[in-house]
Amino acid sequence: MSVTISAAQVKELRDKTGAGVMDCRHALVDAAGDLCKAEEILRVKGIKSADKKAGRVASDGLVEAYLHSSKLGVLIEVNCETDFVAKTEEFKTLARELAMQVAAYKARYISREEISQEELDNARKIFRDQYTKEGKPANVLEKILEGRMEKYFEEVCLIDQEYIRDGSKKIRDLIKETVAKTGENILVKRFARFSIGEN
Amino acid sequence: MSVTISAAQVKELRDKTGAGVMDCRHALVDAAGDLCKAEEILRVKGIKSADKKAGRVASDGLVEAYLHSSKLGVLIEVNCETDFVAKTEEFKTLARELAMQVAAYKARYISREEISQEELDNARKIFRDQYTKEGKPANVLEKILEGRMEKYFEEVCLIDQEYIRDGSKKIRDLIKETVAKTGENILVKRFARFSIGEN
Repeated sequence: MSVTISAAQVKELRDKTGAGVMDCRHALVDAAGDLCKAEEILRVKGIKSADKKAGRVASDGLVEAYLHSSKLGVLIEVNCETDFVAKTEEFKTLARELAMQVAAYKARYISREEISQEELDNARKIFRDQYTKEGKPANVLEKILEGRMEKYFEEVCLIDQEYIRDGSKKIRDLIKETVAKTGENILVKRFARFSIGEN
Repeated sequence: MSVTISAAQVKELRDKTGAGVMDCRHALVDAAGDLCKAEEILRVKGIKSADKKAGRVASDGLVEAYLHSSKLGVLIEVNCETDFVAKTEEFKTLARELAMQVAAYKARYISREEISQEELDNARKIFRDQYTKEGKPANVLEKILEGRMEKYFEEVCLIDQEYIRDGSKKIRDLIKETVAKTGENILVKRFARFSIGEN
């Protein structure tokens, strides 16, 4: 199968995905010139390479603030590997979106690893008592409970939450997309969310 | 002693201090029309009344953010009693100044009451060892140590720090001045300071 890929097609794909020239050309060849398919190919490849990058040291980055009103504010530190990437529009956009996400969806943790065993045990007990009261049979209770705990993580953990602008996407995925675009490991180091009258 | 106070003098004093019309008029009468003396009278009265207000509930206020650069940011919650005062220029200015202060002087605590006994004991031990090594006589060592601990509080506690714009003033005094101007109890509820590469 021989297909001619124009520079304009490569540019269009690059603009959409932020991937490198050769990656875009290869993806377009593999997709026989179909832009949507090529994007999907890059996305899958990108996310694969994003997972590989997760072990690398992310010690540069950005501090971003978002004031929703004078009553609610968020401060977040997002790390990447170099100042070069920290200054890209893709990375700055990610930091802004994450700050807004925390303001809107009230994450309490970055990931489930931060939750204390005591809080996990408490949550599990509350849900178990509830399902027992509702008469859920013992053989399905554990399975239902696991599902409920996942839901709980989606409520309280930033990276497990649905993205405010696109419910089909987790914050984890949003971050991986930016990893794929920038080619660097990215992680949320810490955040603070202050709201008058809440603590 | 009879002295005539003009409306212009009252206005000038009000603009400088934020105090009420009658308070300004009385202060000017007591100061025989001397603006500086009148200001001093108000300041002393104001600070006295500020101390009285310290017990009242401060549950409204502002969340303020300050980004020094993309690498350093501060989020701070400053409380007062009503949204009316939270919206005044005096209060907003205080919140901004405090955020900037935290960015510049790296406070770790709001006040010394927050410091753990362990950290206090550690600091005291380090200073004591140092003074013993320097051969300070036992009869003055405790006194020197107390002085050094005060200095330590000035380093790490926001309200004990010198104000970035006026080293003759403590942050505690800056807050009291705003209490005097607004007539409400004011306190710093919490702050976060994120700097890339520091934790």
